[in-house]
Amino acid sequence: MSGNSFGTLFCVTSFGESHGPAYGGVVDGCPPGLELSNGDLQKELDRRKPGSSRHVTQRRESDAVEILSGVYEGRTTGTAIGFLVKNEDQRSKDYAAIAQKFRPGHADYTYFQKYGVRDPRGGGRASARETVVRVAAGAIAKKWLRQRYGVVVRGHLAELGPHKIAFQSWDAVERNPFFSPNPQVIPVLEKFMDELRESGDSCGARVNVVAEGVPVGWGEPVYGRLDADIAAAMMSINAVKGVEIGAGFAAVLQKGSEHGDEMTPEGFVANNNGGVLGGISTGQHITVSIALKPTSSIRLPRRTLDTEGRPATVQTTGRHDPCVGIRATPIAEAMLACVLMDHALRHRAQCADVTPPVKLEKPKKIN
Amino acid sequence: MSGNSFGTLFCVTSFGESHGPAYGGVVDGCPPGLELSNGDLQKELDRRKPGSSRHVTQRRESDAVEILSGVYEGRTTGTAIGFLVKNEDQRSKDYAAIAQKFRPGHADYTYFQKYGVRDPRGGGRASARETVVRVAAGAIAKKWLRQRYGVVVRGHLAELGPHKIAFQSWDAVERNPFFSPNPQVIPVLEKFMDELRESGDSCGARVNVVAEGVPVGWGEPVYGRLDADIAAAMMSINAVKGVEIGAGFAAVLQKGSEHGDEMTPEGFVANNNGGVLGGISTGQHITVSIALKPTSSIRLPRRTLDTEGRPATVQTTGRHDPCVGIRATPIAEAMLACVLMDHALRHRAQCADVTPPVKLEKPKKIN
Amino acid sequence: MSGNSFGTLFCVTSFGESHGPAYGGVVDGCPPGLELSNGDLQKELDRRKPGSSRHVTQRRESDAVEILSGVYEGRTTGTAIGFLVKNEDQRSKDYAAIAQKFRPGHADYTYFQKYGVRDPRGGGRASARETVVRVAAGAIAKKWLRQRYGVVVRGHLAELGPHKIAFQSWDAVERNPFFSPNPQVIPVLEKFMDELRESGDSCGARVNVVAEGVPVGWGEPVYGRLDADIAAAMMSINAVKGVEIGAGFAAVLQKGSEHGDEMTPEGFVANNNGGVLGGISTGQHITVSIALKPTSSIRLPRRTLDTEGRPATVQTTGRHDPCVGIRATPIAEAMLACVLMDHALRHRAQCADVTPPVKLEKPKKIN
Amino acid sequence: MSGNSFGTLFCVTSFGESHGPAYGGVVDGCPPGLELSNGDLQKELDRRKPGSSRHVTQRRESDAVEILSGVYEGRTTGTAIGFLVKNEDQRSKDYAAIAQKFRPGHADYTYFQKYGVRDPRGGGRASARETVVRVAAGAIAKKWLRQRYGVVVRGHLAELGPHKIAFQSWDAVERNPFFSPNPQVIPVLEKFMDELRESGDSCGARVNVVAEGVPVGWGEPVYGRLDADIAAAMMSINAVKGVEIGAGFAAVLQKGSEHGDEMTPEGFVANNNGGVLGGISTGQHITVSIALKPTSSIRLPRRTLDTEGRPATVQTTGRHDPCVGIRATPIAEAMLACVLMDHALRHRAQCADVTPPVKLEKPKKIN
Repeated sequence: MSGNSFGTLFCVTSFGESHGPAYGGVVDGCPPGLELSNGDLQKELDRRKPGSSRHVTQRRESDAVEILSGVYEGRTTGTAIGFLVKNEDQRSKDYAAIAQKFRPGHADYTYFQKYGVRDPRGGGRASARETVVRVAAGAIAKKWLRQRYGVVVRGHLAELGPHKIAFQSWDAVERNPFFSPNPQVIPVLEKFMDELRESGDSCGARVNVVAEGVPVGWGEPVYGRLDADIAAAMMSINAVKGVEIGAGFAAVLQKGSEHGDEMTPEGFVANNNGGVLGGISTGQHITVSIALKPTSSIRLPRRTLDTEGRPATVQTTGRHDPCVGIRATPIAEAMLACVLMDHALRHRAQCADVTPPVKLEKPKKIN
Repeated sequence: MSGNSFGTLFCVTSFGESHGPAYGGVVDGCPPGLELSNGDLQKELDRRKPGSSRHVTQRRESDAVEILSGVYEGRTTGTAIGFLVKNEDQRSKDYAAIAQKFRPGHADYTYFQKYGVRDPRGGGRASARETVVRVAAGAIAKKWLRQRYGVVVRGHLAELGPHKIAFQSWDAVERNPFFSPNPQVIPVLEKFMDELRESGDSCGARVNVVAEGVPVGWGEPVYGRLDADIAAAMMSINAVKGVEIGAGFAAVLQKGSEHGDEMTPEGFVANNNGGVLGGISTGQHITVSIALKPTSSIRLPRRTLDTEGRPATVQTTGRHDPCVGIRATPIAEAMLACVLMDHALRHRAQCADVTPPVKLEKPKKIN
Repeated sequence: MSGNSFGTLFCVTSFGESHGPAYGGVVDGCPPGLELSNGDLQKELDRRKPGSSRHVTQRRESDAVEILSGVYEGRTTGTAIGFLVKNEDQRSKDYAAIAQKFRPGHADYTYFQKYGVRDPRGGGRASARETVVRVAAGAIAKKWLRQRYGVVVRGHLAELGPHKIAFQSWDAVERNPFFSPNPQVIPVLEKFMDELRESGDSCGARVNVVAEGVPVGWGEPVYGRLDADIAAAMMSINAVKGVEIGAGFAAVLQKGSEHGDEMTPEGFVANNNGGVLGGISTGQHITVSIALKPTSSIRLPRRTLDTEGRPATVQTTGRHDPCVGIRATPIAEAMLACVLMDHALRHRAQCADVTPPVKLEKPKKIN
Repeated sequence: MSGNSFGTLFCVTSFGESHGPAYGGVVDGCPPGLELSNGDLQKELDRRKPGSSRHVTQRRESDAVEILSGVYEGRTTGTAIGFLVKNEDQRSKDYAAIAQKFRPGHADYTYFQKYGVRDPRGGGRASARETVVRVAAGAIAKKWLRQRYGVVVRGHLAELGPHKIAFQSWDAVERNPFFSPNPQVIPVLEKFMDELRESGDSCGARVNVVAEGVPVGWGEPVYGRLDADIAAAMMSINAVKGVEIGAGFAAVLQKGSEHGDEMTPEGFVANNNGGVLGGISTGQHITVSIALKPTSSIRLPRRTLDTEGRPATVQTTGRHDPCVGIRATPIAEAMLACVLMDHALRHRAQCADVTPPVKLEKPKKIN
């Protein structure tokens, strides 16, 4: 165990580097009997695929996934699900220029100092390309959560640099390369990204993710809180620097009489708590928001060190996303789905014999 | 394992309820030979003790801690360190009125629905009084980190409701009941709290925590990131709804050329990354900021349900902190210390034979 | 985590030393709603209590257990169950003579070399007195297994030094201080033990443990096998040097046509596999057998080293069991119960929606 | 987590089925800087390869392994090492006859009952072919242990059915298909196996494994004992029904004065404890012995059930090892190496600052 697995009962293990032969993952703990095919994973992988618009990295990867185990005659067997995604379009020569220098804001430096050695090609293990494994694993979790509990996990871009994006509809999200829930704003975003790309710089973003239909009771007390595990999962995504549940940092300015969601027999009247109280799901929507920092690989010259510790200037010319946040929506959804599935299993392990005593009348769900 | 332990190698296990006989903890994995006494733990416990000013709960607890194992002749033996903190001032009758009702914004409801049973006295296991265990464990981590690596972990109140608190000095922090790093603002905070208390309402807060002196290299790739574990640890503190590392949500508005901290032979020229790149410590200060929601137990009448699901009105008259954020500073410090110590051990397990190749000249540290 | 916890979902954490103030444990993951009192734990602790006959250590301990958390109004709440057993009859002066010497066959030496420091009083953390925690935790597991699944876990002495003990009845087991399932053999055992005690020497033993009523399906493939976890749990008991499941070492001499248990609609016709196939329970009795080495603290002079590495002679005069195997039966039962409960929870986490497809007609159970 | 990973810091995750496209593994936690190539893994895989003599399964597999990540320019990078071994010679039609029946003594039945579904081809996940993953992972552990600590892990066949094999030399072991340390006995073993194969039956075996050069201090108290983890690792190998450390079951018949290994400044004078005291390595050889049951897939007709629960007769005609013990030596070595490496890392995490206080003079090592 050195950081490449997560989850207690629904456990994902990942390997691979940006310019190695392949990425791969192992999902252990999936219940048996779930219908599952390469196509189920591919559908989600295609959503985060590079090269899908001019606003993201132009690396050409089909990201074709192959399930190698754990599925027999179209159904999961309950044993470990191994899968591979081959790398096809490595252009390691792009990295010759930066092999001896650290990119400011990149893990180049910390990996080298931690391990005394690093794979400089494409960021090696630190590459955001590792998220193929998360998205593939998340596809399994999403499918099971929906079939078994009717849980739907989805997300959207909420801010792109200085542009706040007002939520309009979920339908809009899949119809543009930004995962924007608002079609009107697309021209603005496109213009902004075109200018950004031209400038050689990069920008930050905010992504919101929501899980609907989560039953009351998932999560554990004290340290094993559902929101604690969500926070870890989100912060583990490349470039994430902040995580909020429900009202998040806005709660600092709230009074208790405003923040504490009142209850009626129809359910909660608001959702400041983001669907989690005391670390346990309330039955409302789980709402999560994350901040993504701007890409560290930019085309502008920057002061840095070389691997000998001497001052240098670095400029990155490889193919990079000018805003990693644009492709982050399916990744954040995947991480939320994996955490929820893990807690669904953990909950029924301990509390399979419990029926929640309070029945609410057809509760209204509030985002 | 059902939520009451955390940490991989420096592992803390906690038990106890607000109105049971005692809280207790077990710290497993502490290296042998560390000088340790009840006093080391008590010093930190006294910082978070209730009743220390009129702005916090008036429950009277000495919070006296007793180490029961793992220490011999004043030094840790490397075996499990068990300790107890007895409860002294339970007033369970305060809770008779709310035993059959759920407090809005409180875990009353979710515990009851998850387990089908709950200890309603003082919030039972969900009480913030559980944080005595974290603070005691954190005292061990703090001491070891300082002695072994010169790491100093400290924190301060950064916002109290609408009042932002400009950082002035660490010295100020321990001289007021708010952990405010700014003495000028104290009268304002006192007036605000007096009015808040009178109104029967509660407010939110923001707390900042910093670890200075952390060497480069702690943390693991991908899922075991140092910042991911910090995020989980912080989000597991009662009432926390948001966590930021470094620039946090401000990174959304930054350009890459602004956010990516440039490097010189004297070190980084800024610390937008909060001391973590790619999940691994950079050698700079680790900077963390958390949002705490307003206390859910308030004296104002609120709509809720009773345990039969019928509409009811609830008003909480027990002794509560009108702002849990006021006493949160030592708790957040403790959690950060525990995560850092865990990663110090994890790092040397795998990388004991590595010398970080790049030596910086007396690096400047930037908060 | 440094060895003082075990179990994945039903997790036991232990602390305490032989001559410290107390032993304590934390059981995390117990389902809510189980009736539980101090008495449930005490009943099992009394079975392994020292001083109950002249054949075991004469240390006088009431071994009174107090539950400190996790139980409300007589039922488990689903939160961590903490408990304490105070030490009462420490006679640390007995150890003055051996504080500077290592007992051959004892962990004195390895603890000192591992940690550079040790608590020499009564073996410190290595004392078999730690098993109070196991037995208390096992009492919870036994009760839940019986109530929820009808599983009965029990054991007996099978060999005492050179004396093999033919199984006669379970009833006999609780009626003698040896946990012998055969009343006829008691006089022989008593005479043997009296002579052994007089000689100042010690002897080994074999204990058998059986779990009846375990449903088919508990256990996990490959590394998380039920029998692998049982083997670890048994080998973790002080003095255990060997573990067998089912036919055990006798399987070396069997042919496949003899060993492989045939099946009929009434169930298996034999139980060479000890109730486990491929790491998963078969629905038959789980049968386990363990070897316990002779006590290392004996009254005969032995060659050893002192803590400076100089040759010395050691002779142990404290109060010791001349055969640790005599009191091992309740401990082995406890460990088996804890592993089974852990796997019961693990199984229903993943496979709660599976109904075993093959129904056997009232299967005969074979020990 | 559902059984397919093991190890705390040196963690191995496995996937694959006998008749799926491939087996694969992920080794997480390997220190950086270790020279590593496909050849290092292949060398060990070739030792356990099928088809290497007429006495083992005739399945033809090259067992060619490919490392997919975690190695850069011939050295480990500290990140996850993923590898694949493709299946080449699946003959699934062999299994048509048994797809609807359970083999007595096989996991066919328990997998089907646990999961409600199974991959019947070649035993699916329960196939002993999964041990390719263990052997590949063990090759990494062996190499690191030898380079970093001079630890040598090796094993040999000790009994084949009724034939006890007296140890003669390590050199002999690699020169015959039985891993026999005694060349004289080979003709006897060959004749025995030829007759056994002809009879359609199978037999059991015993394998001994030894680790030489393990420093004092590896292992943890109480539940995390080195021998407990070894026991689990061994019992997790297909067909293992018993595990002994040191004297093992022979300890039942020993007196304390015989069993407890005396010490002199040159070291221990015997090794009844098998190199482990109190769960911690003594610095002597670690000695382990395991019992392997006879293969359950035999050509003789046996009573069983079909998947509908009806009585049936089964006879297995696929290609099977008539004695799984013959190829078990490299597997047992691999498991021991993995456990030792895990504990080496765990030990230095906690005790990196400890120097063992007692220095022995050039200790004699006793097997």
